[in-house]
Amino acid sequence: MKILELASTPSARRVGIFLAELGIEVPREQLNLRAGDNLTPEFKSKSVNGRIPVLALDDGNYICESVAICRYFDALHPSRQSLFGNTPLEQAQVEMWNRVLELNGLMVAFQGFRNLSGIFKDRERVVEPWGVECRQRLLEFLPSLEARLNGRDFVAIDRFSIADITGFVLIGFLPRLDIELTDTMPNIRRWYAAVAERPSTNQGL
Amino acid sequence: MKILELASTPSARRVGIFLAELGIEVPREQLNLRAGDNLTPEFKSKSVNGRIPVLALDDGNYICESVAICRYFDALHPSRQSLFGNTPLEQAQVEMWNRVLELNGLMVAFQGFRNLSGIFKDRERVVEPWGVECRQRLLEFLPSLEARLNGRDFVAIDRFSIADITGFVLIGFLPRLDIELTDTMPNIRRWYAAVAERPSTNQGL
Repeated sequence: MKILELASTPSARRVGIFLAELGIEVPREQLNLRAGDNLTPEFKSKSVNGRIPVLALDDGNYICESVAICRYFDALHPSRQSLFGNTPLEQAQVEMWNRVLELNGLMVAFQGFRNLSGIFKDRERVVEPWGVECRQRLLEFLPSLEARLNGRDFVAIDRFSIADITGFVLIGFLPRLDIELTDTMPNIRRWYAAVAERPSTNQGL
Repeated sequence: MKILELASTPSARRVGIFLAELGIEVPREQLNLRAGDNLTPEFKSKSVNGRIPVLALDDGNYICESVAICRYFDALHPSRQSLFGNTPLEQAQVEMWNRVLELNGLMVAFQGFRNLSGIFKDRERVVEPWGVECRQRLLEFLPSLEARLNGRDFVAIDRFSIADITGFVLIGFLPRLDIELTDTMPNIRRWYAAVAERPSTNQGL
């Protein structure tokens, strides 16, 4: 098997950190998105959503969507410390926080960046006022993450989970939208610094 | 336990169909969103994302995000026919298709509807050109679902899964965006009609 990706992208980082937490190494092939490696009919036949990363399995199946790739490896390597949670309550809390951080955080940040920067305007229509709106919604979302982390070391449950990975990648993406973590967000800063010290995130991914 | 919801909303339908497939009955309390039942500090203290549905557990925990609620019940009632898939490959395929249908389908449809109709303009800023763009992206996404369903009875794996529920709710939402399934989408029409015949979807939910 191998993963088709571009290591510097947030989605590839999510998968890379997840695999590093599990101690799993998977061969990776780097694509050049600016050159349109992900726009070819061949790539589109592999990736349902047309995006990276894509996991190419030895049986000929392809899995796109970062979290789907993570679930594949989680199911392949059952653990009493699953990054998706173990008990029904843990699983629900991890799914909830991971989704909240995606739907109100990471996806909003991506839409904001793409519509404000026009980085992909050669391949998608851009609506700048929506970029402005997304950036504002992100600013309005961050206080709820700050509140959640008050007195907590991890976002979703009492140990590291995929929700912490999603949140870490989100916070790392904020400079692209000219958003700085200020002194008004001490909990996010403390938590972010702690996650940045983990071997999984601390390897120049 | 109970579920706080508004039964007619797409997100409540997703959870309702999921529970009906499992044969589980959970008491439900209907909220009036137009009257702002979901805007009170009390509701916001229960729902991390401020949205319905919310599962109120007997231990005082609250779970929002439809798919997180579904995962809670899936984990509580393990099955060899899990709606999230069983083998690692099935789990990955279900997660992939469920996400593709959400991120390129249902979420785009919601953003389109909210920004075009202005239904919540008393409580959120509306960017109409983004609504136009979302409607167009939805039209451009549907052919990939049509292609996927060619020769298949179910979206993700060889039996009914949560991805079929998400797809069913998406297709049911299209009239709100003045999108009709035309003769160019015979596979979606066949599959949609078959899902509509299932007892879980066919109870005036």
